[in-house]
Amino acid sequence: MSVSLHVCITCKAGETVPDGTACPGTRLHAALTAAGAPEAVQIVPVECLSACSQGCSVALSAPGRWSYVYGRLSENDAAEILSGAAAYASAPDGIVPWRQRPQIFRKQSLARIPPMVLA
Amino acid sequence: MSVSLHVCITCKAGETVPDGTACPGTRLHAALTAAGAPEAVQIVPVECLSACSQGCSVALSAPGRWSYVYGRLSENDAAEILSGAAAYASAPDGIVPWRQRPQIFRKQSLARIPPMVLA
Repeated sequence: MSVSLHVCITCKAGETVPDGTACPGTRLHAALTAAGAPEAVQIVPVECLSACSQGCSVALSAPGRWSYVYGRLSENDAAEILSGAAAYASAPDGIVPWRQRPQIFRKQSLARIPPMVLA
Repeated sequence: MSVSLHVCITCKAGETVPDGTACPGTRLHAALTAAGAPEAVQIVPVECLSACSQGCSVALSAPGRWSYVYGRLSENDAAEILSGAAAYASAPDGIVPWRQRPQIFRKQSLARIPPMVLA
């Protein structure tokens, strides 16, 4: 079963984006897909993660795991985001030991949500 | 099936909390449980939602629905949080029409995450 790396593709990250120009969220998504998703990770474009004041943002989730949202990201963070997503996919409960998380995940958490209650 | 209203009970919301005193997160949780959960909502205490700089925070989630995280809350917001949780529980996909959301949900979103992909 794969985990989802949701990427907000509409994020302007506070920039004024001229017509016909890719916004920061679209550029981040492009950088992630160009680098390629790690095993067991699917990159999912999303229109708005409602973290607009802290964009660009991404969210990691999968059934039975904690979900995580990270912000203040850019296309320059693509490699580190993918490394963190791979670590998340490899941890059965999604909880990666603190020191094994990329620095952007340690310092730029916007929120985490416990696993779904299925009852 | 019920939806979960996760409440961070360890949040200090930037306050210095003297020993033996309930922190703002614990007070928010107490206010919510004292007011009583709406139908089909379970109030779930959580130790840290990793939104510490935007606390107090709560998260709404349920299988098949978008998850939402809200911040900058206090025990004074308990009634409005429960009203918003009830509206979320009543919306089959968790997407409540914008005007029917409490003001704190419209203005204090920290993030939202798409429904889980079960594939």
